[in-house]
Amino acid sequence: MVTIGDIGEVLEGYDPDNIEICTLGSHTALQITKGARDEGFRNLLICTEKSARFYRRWPVVDDIIIVDHYRDILDQEMQDMLLARNAVLIPHGSFIEYVGAKNIIEKLKVPMLGNRMVLEWESNRKKEKKWLKKSALKIPGEFKSPKDIDKLVIIKFPGAKGGEGYFLAKDEEEFHRKLEKINLPEDVKKEYTIQEYVIGTRFYPHFFYSPLDDEVELLGMDIRYESNIDGLARLPNVIQKEVDVEPLYVVTGNLPVILRESLLPDLMKLGRNLVESSKKLFKPGLIGPFCVEMICTPELEFVCFEISARIVAGTNLFIHGSTYSKILYDEPMSCGRRICREIKTAGERNKLDKVVY
Amino acid sequence: MVTIGDIGEVLEGYDPDNIEICTLGSHTALQITKGARDEGFRNLLICTEKSARFYRRWPVVDDIIIVDHYRDILDQEMQDMLLARNAVLIPHGSFIEYVGAKNIIEKLKVPMLGNRMVLEWESNRKKEKKWLKKSALKIPGEFKSPKDIDKLVIIKFPGAKGGEGYFLAKDEEEFHRKLEKINLPEDVKKEYTIQEYVIGTRFYPHFFYSPLDDEVELLGMDIRYESNIDGLARLPNVIQKEVDVEPLYVVTGNLPVILRESLLPDLMKLGRNLVESSKKLFKPGLIGPFCVEMICTPELEFVCFEISARIVAGTNLFIHGSTYSKILYDEPMSCGRRICREIKTAGERNKLDKVVY
Amino acid sequence: MVTIGDIGEVLEGYDPDNIEICTLGSHTALQITKGARDEGFRNLLICTEKSARFYRRWPVVDDIIIVDHYRDILDQEMQDMLLARNAVLIPHGSFIEYVGAKNIIEKLKVPMLGNRMVLEWESNRKKEKKWLKKSALKIPGEFKSPKDIDKLVIIKFPGAKGGEGYFLAKDEEEFHRKLEKINLPEDVKKEYTIQEYVIGTRFYPHFFYSPLDDEVELLGMDIRYESNIDGLARLPNVIQKEVDVEPLYVVTGNLPVILRESLLPDLMKLGRNLVESSKKLFKPGLIGPFCVEMICTPELEFVCFEISARIVAGTNLFIHGSTYSKILYDEPMSCGRRICREIKTAGERNKLDKVVY
Repeated sequence: MVTIGDIGEVLEGYDPDNIEICTLGSHTALQITKGARDEGFRNLLICTEKSARFYRRWPVVDDIIIVDHYRDILDQEMQDMLLARNAVLIPHGSFIEYVGAKNIIEKLKVPMLGNRMVLEWESNRKKEKKWLKKSALKIPGEFKSPKDIDKLVIIKFPGAKGGEGYFLAKDEEEFHRKLEKINLPEDVKKEYTIQEYVIGTRFYPHFFYSPLDDEVELLGMDIRYESNIDGLARLPNVIQKEVDVEPLYVVTGNLPVILRESLLPDLMKLGRNLVESSKKLFKPGLIGPFCVEMICTPELEFVCFEISARIVAGTNLFIHGSTYSKILYDEPMSCGRRICREIKTAGERNKLDKVVY
Repeated sequence: MVTIGDIGEVLEGYDPDNIEICTLGSHTALQITKGARDEGFRNLLICTEKSARFYRRWPVVDDIIIVDHYRDILDQEMQDMLLARNAVLIPHGSFIEYVGAKNIIEKLKVPMLGNRMVLEWESNRKKEKKWLKKSALKIPGEFKSPKDIDKLVIIKFPGAKGGEGYFLAKDEEEFHRKLEKINLPEDVKKEYTIQEYVIGTRFYPHFFYSPLDDEVELLGMDIRYESNIDGLARLPNVIQKEVDVEPLYVVTGNLPVILRESLLPDLMKLGRNLVESSKKLFKPGLIGPFCVEMICTPELEFVCFEISARIVAGTNLFIHGSTYSKILYDEPMSCGRRICREIKTAGERNKLDKVVY
Repeated sequence: MVTIGDIGEVLEGYDPDNIEICTLGSHTALQITKGARDEGFRNLLICTEKSARFYRRWPVVDDIIIVDHYRDILDQEMQDMLLARNAVLIPHGSFIEYVGAKNIIEKLKVPMLGNRMVLEWESNRKKEKKWLKKSALKIPGEFKSPKDIDKLVIIKFPGAKGGEGYFLAKDEEEFHRKLEKINLPEDVKKEYTIQEYVIGTRFYPHFFYSPLDDEVELLGMDIRYESNIDGLARLPNVIQKEVDVEPLYVVTGNLPVILRESLLPDLMKLGRNLVESSKKLFKPGLIGPFCVEMICTPELEFVCFEISARIVAGTNLFIHGSTYSKILYDEPMSCGRRICREIKTAGERNKLDKVVY
């Protein structure tokens, strides 16, 4: 395992005036490279041949290294090269998915924005639930056994593949019938969670926690645009009932949204609670960007589902800033840029070790 | 009752170079304080303890006064303080709801943007209907008695609580069954309106009328994002029909939208008509921001439902300007900023009495 | 027929330092006039009396000429006037619809942005299909005869009227029953296309191809907001099934959206393929803005429906730039402005003949 002390040692050898912002060529890489550029950092993308062809054509990308597979970032040679370049890695959804939380914790010696211990807490459903509860957030009911299903539930599987395989069921019979048909590896299938399906409006707020200033900021929010459900729901009833298509929840894009302003105080409190409890659960706690998947009920309560303790894809909507970031910053402040700003500020204050691990 | 003459007298004592923009800490307060800042005004928020904790953390808020209840703004001491600070109040949805239209008209001696006589016309359904008709706008059919219901209708209740309690019905039986269950005070229940349910796309255009230049501007438009209906509608048919959940229409947020450009001339005419007829119905007529809730039918006609004669929550989408305001202004012009611009221009032209009452 | 050589001759008489950007007053005219203004061109709108009243009130419009009917632009006198003003026409959806593809190709001697030969390829369904296939894009299945319908299909009609008359059917009986009722001219009715109805998320990406630099750019994307379907789909099931309303797909507006970044490489390749095959099908091929109507399936494949080889209405969302254009350009770059930039660059390089015909 790579300890926070190991990373501290690495940082001692880093030139704080020559940090290079590095991530994998996918997910939010355009936003991150632009953010790095705006904050005065060089940037580097690690790409496959195919993604290199794409990213090469955007003017914000400084440098590209091509690998066969994204997890080649773990190779000794690659890590040495990144260390020699004073690289700070920015993890995103595809980064975690391709490299693997376990590999990152055990093998990755390159400094990474945030606290990598959070990976254990967001990928393990039991730990995530403990974290949500300790933060006093309202969470949906869960059923331990399919036998107990007595209302509409959604069945979820671990991993960051954007809702692949999720399905709805009303009772045990439907649960088993649909689980059977789902195209997922058997070991993944077994790790299902049966969750109460809460009906309301969806919000994915983009928070940023700065440990340097002990501030929680709201940088934007979005709604996921999912296939095929967002197409299916638009079919008129008379048609839909004769079309035998199972709803799927694969994330294909994002839509912008804002929240009723009178609900913002509750939202910010919820974000702060997650930060405070994280400090107790896994020191030094949450660092940088995070997002909470939530439903707002007609009673104006937030029911919280999942935490993503990193930059989320929905932030791509606001590369030039959101309604919220425009109030906080005079400049166009994307989440990617905010990350780079934090690294810059940390460098200036000689506190890089407070924002990476 | 506080007359326009009373406010005129107050204004004579005001220092036009030292106006303070003031509103309640809710609804569109961030936008309004930012707008004031951008136009060179000091700003002040009247907050409860809870909302003060929230607003204090945004850099655009200059000053905060804490009250136990928002309607404490009516207290003599508070009003005297506001007058001493040269305050101009900006009314928004929560402002009207918490302080009360009647109280504003009868007791509030502080100058307020707009013509407060409009409050009588937008809160009283009969007067509102008269105004819409006089403006030659198409409005949905209404049924006087539940007995007459012969098509899909929506039942609405007075007040600005964001659609609370609204329900759909197809016939008299469904009307009575659902009215019974609705959780609203008995006196509010009795004031139901039975309206034809028009099916089409929803638009909430954000107009601004400047009496100084006699111009109607379009600053943006939005769609309301409502709980639980926007979650319910996304449930697949096969699931939805087995879930016994009543649709609710509580506003939880807003989504951006633009209108087909060939429909903009009709939209602007409609806005102008409302302004012209308002001048005849309640002198000096509508002043400043207003919004019309409308449906666009497949025949490309607008059916108009309600008028909000003040800044609406959907304008929060465009704190940095909308597609429409970007054509009108080189600067990022939110509705909140446009309001402050109007007050500034009025001050410069020595015509503050033309934009407040 | 007006040949590319005819236009070349016209251009020889043009003063490249005095080009005037001209279009019809509808569709994307605000965006185009603002784009012209931003790039240093004078602009001119051809309007009906009604649209002139509207456009006159926006500060970006330089000059307006009033006609009885939009197709009066074909009159000799009008064309001579446009030529004398060094006008370059910008075609948009209403332009094509009102003037007519055939008239443009045969009678319009004024230089027009793009390659007018594309009009034959996008308006003729067979040719369009050939183009899509040659570009190796996945297209929906089609049924030659109503007898063959064995799954959910959508029936479409030619023309740019924004989805008017489109309907869904599950079998032959439903096809005939609904076709009967549709309010379209008999000759249009006969030109129906029976297309497999693909269920997924809709995307309308806004591409721009610069022949000067041989680059395909992504300037934004949107979702169409259609009446009455987007209202109908929001009706709860229990209500919807008792309301006998036929779904209609008339475009009334547009909603912003972004695409999952890992799908962008595929999207850009698809755009490039369309450009490359167009060079083979109709020399010199596609020039300037184009859009592909597509569905993203849960398998993350794009199914492509129609090509619009001109500026589309959804670009009006991004008059101040989209998330994508912000990465490409430091300035706010709308599609309308990008068009004018191309004309400006062509003028500077003495290559105006490469971007108009």
